[in-house]
Amino acid sequence: MSAETIRMARPDGEGLARVVARLQDRFAERCQTGASIREQHGNTTTWLETLPPDAVVFAETAEEVSEIVRLCAEHRVPVIPFGTGTSLEGQVNAPHGGVSIDVSRMNRIVAVHAEDLDCVIEPGVTRKQLNEYLRDQGLFFPIDPGADASLGGMASTRASGTNAVRYGTMKDVVLSLKAVMPDGRIITTGTRAKKSSAGYDLTRLMIGAEGTLGIITELTLRLHGIPEAITAGVCPFETLEGACNAVIATIQSGIPVARIELLDEQQVKACNAYSKLDMAEAPTLLLEFHGSENGVREQAEMFGEIAAEFGGGGFEWARAPEDRTRLWQARHDAYWACVALRPGSKAVATDVCVPISRLAECITESRRDLDETGLFGPIVGHVGDGNFHVALLVNMDDPEEVAKAKAYMGRLVDRAIAMDGTCTGEHGIGHGKAKYLRAELGDAVDFMAMVKQAIDPLDIMNPGKIIRDVVGS
Amino acid sequence: MSAETIRMARPDGEGLARVVARLQDRFAERCQTGASIREQHGNTTTWLETLPPDAVVFAETAEEVSEIVRLCAEHRVPVIPFGTGTSLEGQVNAPHGGVSIDVSRMNRIVAVHAEDLDCVIEPGVTRKQLNEYLRDQGLFFPIDPGADASLGGMASTRASGTNAVRYGTMKDVVLSLKAVMPDGRIITTGTRAKKSSAGYDLTRLMIGAEGTLGIITELTLRLHGIPEAITAGVCPFETLEGACNAVIATIQSGIPVARIELLDEQQVKACNAYSKLDMAEAPTLLLEFHGSENGVREQAEMFGEIAAEFGGGGFEWARAPEDRTRLWQARHDAYWACVALRPGSKAVATDVCVPISRLAECITESRRDLDETGLFGPIVGHVGDGNFHVALLVNMDDPEEVAKAKAYMGRLVDRAIAMDGTCTGEHGIGHGKAKYLRAELGDAVDFMAMVKQAIDPLDIMNPGKIIRDVVGS
Repeated sequence: MSAETIRMARPDGEGLARVVARLQDRFAERCQTGASIREQHGNTTTWLETLPPDAVVFAETAEEVSEIVRLCAEHRVPVIPFGTGTSLEGQVNAPHGGVSIDVSRMNRIVAVHAEDLDCVIEPGVTRKQLNEYLRDQGLFFPIDPGADASLGGMASTRASGTNAVRYGTMKDVVLSLKAVMPDGRIITTGTRAKKSSAGYDLTRLMIGAEGTLGIITELTLRLHGIPEAITAGVCPFETLEGACNAVIATIQSGIPVARIELLDEQQVKACNAYSKLDMAEAPTLLLEFHGSENGVREQAEMFGEIAAEFGGGGFEWARAPEDRTRLWQARHDAYWACVALRPGSKAVATDVCVPISRLAECITESRRDLDETGLFGPIVGHVGDGNFHVALLVNMDDPEEVAKAKAYMGRLVDRAIAMDGTCTGEHGIGHGKAKYLRAELGDAVDFMAMVKQAIDPLDIMNPGKIIRDVVGS
Repeated sequence: MSAETIRMARPDGEGLARVVARLQDRFAERCQTGASIREQHGNTTTWLETLPPDAVVFAETAEEVSEIVRLCAEHRVPVIPFGTGTSLEGQVNAPHGGVSIDVSRMNRIVAVHAEDLDCVIEPGVTRKQLNEYLRDQGLFFPIDPGADASLGGMASTRASGTNAVRYGTMKDVVLSLKAVMPDGRIITTGTRAKKSSAGYDLTRLMIGAEGTLGIITELTLRLHGIPEAITAGVCPFETLEGACNAVIATIQSGIPVARIELLDEQQVKACNAYSKLDMAEAPTLLLEFHGSENGVREQAEMFGEIAAEFGGGGFEWARAPEDRTRLWQARHDAYWACVALRPGSKAVATDVCVPISRLAECITESRRDLDETGLFGPIVGHVGDGNFHVALLVNMDDPEEVAKAKAYMGRLVDRAIAMDGTCTGEHGIGHGKAKYLRAELGDAVDFMAMVKQAIDPLDIMNPGKIIRDVVGS
């Protein structure tokens, strides 16, 4: 079987109408069919077109999600899970219509087990909501994509962020999931034990599956104690290459850096303007160290020596919590800072990830390619992991510019794959990158398709994502 | 579909004979059918009976593995991968006969990328072989089950060991795998990028699948720099509970301990005798700290304060590399030390893992249960993760004692599951624990069965393991 053979039985108009009528009957005002709410739920913060679902249901419990899925399965109507709608590759759009299940009201923090450093939450809880809740207990949850995303969505796209270099990605911090499967059954994929060898790792199978195998309705997450000491710093470099090489040396020397983020010159200008900062307009690293007072001092000193070696200097330290918050909020707002640079354009944020030894080469080539193509795109990245983003600012009304940008994106992916990297470090495949998956993983994609077909034989769960189907591609 | 419906089409005698004849023809002396070599390959270091395969083939390349799998698939003959044969739940036995593919000769270290902190190896490389190879480059690989297991086998059982509390388990250190799938195709599940969101996590699906979905033929592994400073120590406690509570407090306080291992009094006696040590005969923690000189000192001081609070003391430090090696070799030999305690008995090593807040309670109850049942079984564990082992020393010729031990094992698993833990932290399910999987994970097992049936529709890959079939159960 080839992945391309998966093809959804499209809902007939009558079946769809019956499903929507029953949902309206059952959920009253919690089932919405107005154009604007449907469009918002099929929208995507990239250049993919908005593909709205036929209805949006605001679910409040796993049982309700199960009920909706069973009803949709009966009539082969697609089901698309929705958290905050901040995914970047069209994960929430509805190429075949269907029902968007919005879980944003499932936002209860079910339990915090401080003694075990874990918590149990519903999928609509956002990362900021969770951290505000945890702060009083001296705990934090480290995964932080730019947006204040929902944890269900973050698990579904295998998200990461600025802390991943030290604390890992969503695949590393989820102990167990509850999920509604395509037949409506609610399963639990693990326990609260820190490790297990009990059977297939369904937890990791669901993480990154983007709702194509089931809908996550509860997460058990690992937490960390807030470190005794935290120092953040800003370090400008003479060249982009120097900054990249300082990152490589830092990782290789084993400094347990908590965050090490690169902004290129364009991105620094964008952040200065948007977040009212006054960073030197040069390729810049933002850093953060976690540990004991002594440990943090030691790490910062070691990094300082490395930076000096690669043309870095003029360090600025942010020790006060409010300065640190301002710095990282600016980093998280990098996307919006880009958008503001060129009003009327769309910021198409893409990401790739390469082995760190190839990082300097990959970033400088990608920068040169941008400049030669005449495209405008700041570069920013979680470079400690070899992961970086290009935010292409594209005038969507100019077909030539759009074509140029699409071609650039393809070259970026090809370059990363040729360097033994991946077409996406943290944004996921969704609708937008399905065409690159086979170039990266070859026949492995067929085995993904077998798993998909076995678990979701009707192809009702977020169809057209990850595994590219014939109609939706 | 229920998991129990998976049933293998048994090979007819004629098909099997044809396969073996063709393998002998093709592989000459690398295909063995003598009783002793077959028995050794279907043996298991637990109380499960030896179930030998019909033939053993020593493969030397992924292409050869593929060739054997294709031939076996044609005749529906089972295929069982074999590394060092040190698994503990009957993962290598052959309940339905078939061909054991021994990959121990596939033991090449293909590449070490020191700058990226990763390496590429064949599945027959053992953990000691790898670390000896890496030492000169200042690198190490942290996962260390007691045995000098093969890395392919360690990935297949999602193994861990004494360093897991800091460095994770096999699921955390594998970047990518190559595997021969049931249809003979060789796939690659990932790249050398440190993180990726590209499609389903087939890497993690294969890790812990115990050869039931395919045979691992290459691994790309994350490595670490050898820390600047390492200190190990031995700390006896007044009570088992005090030792457990000291572990809990250590983890909760965020000390980045590299190893924290518990030996109960019986295990200390066994190790003293077997490894010629003179530890105080008391519940004891073995510890190791990794970091800078200052960092290690700080960690040790912090731990010392915690230990004192819970009745620990009389610390002994092992700073010299040779003393540390001796200490950890003794820990790794704990299994053999147990066997030596009661000559003629079999040591049945089992493991469970619970949330750390329940660790003291789970260990003390399990100790009391042992004493009340009149069974002899030292307790030893990777307690920083809530994972511990009971090594039951059983006279296999005494049916009453065997029955008692089996019943004890069931109660141990029930106890761990009731405490929101798992029936196995690191040994895997294999043949021995298949009966507990549904008690722990309920309907999730059905979805494992769907994955198994989709990827291996002929049920030729290590049948009877993890997913319990009707005949083999």
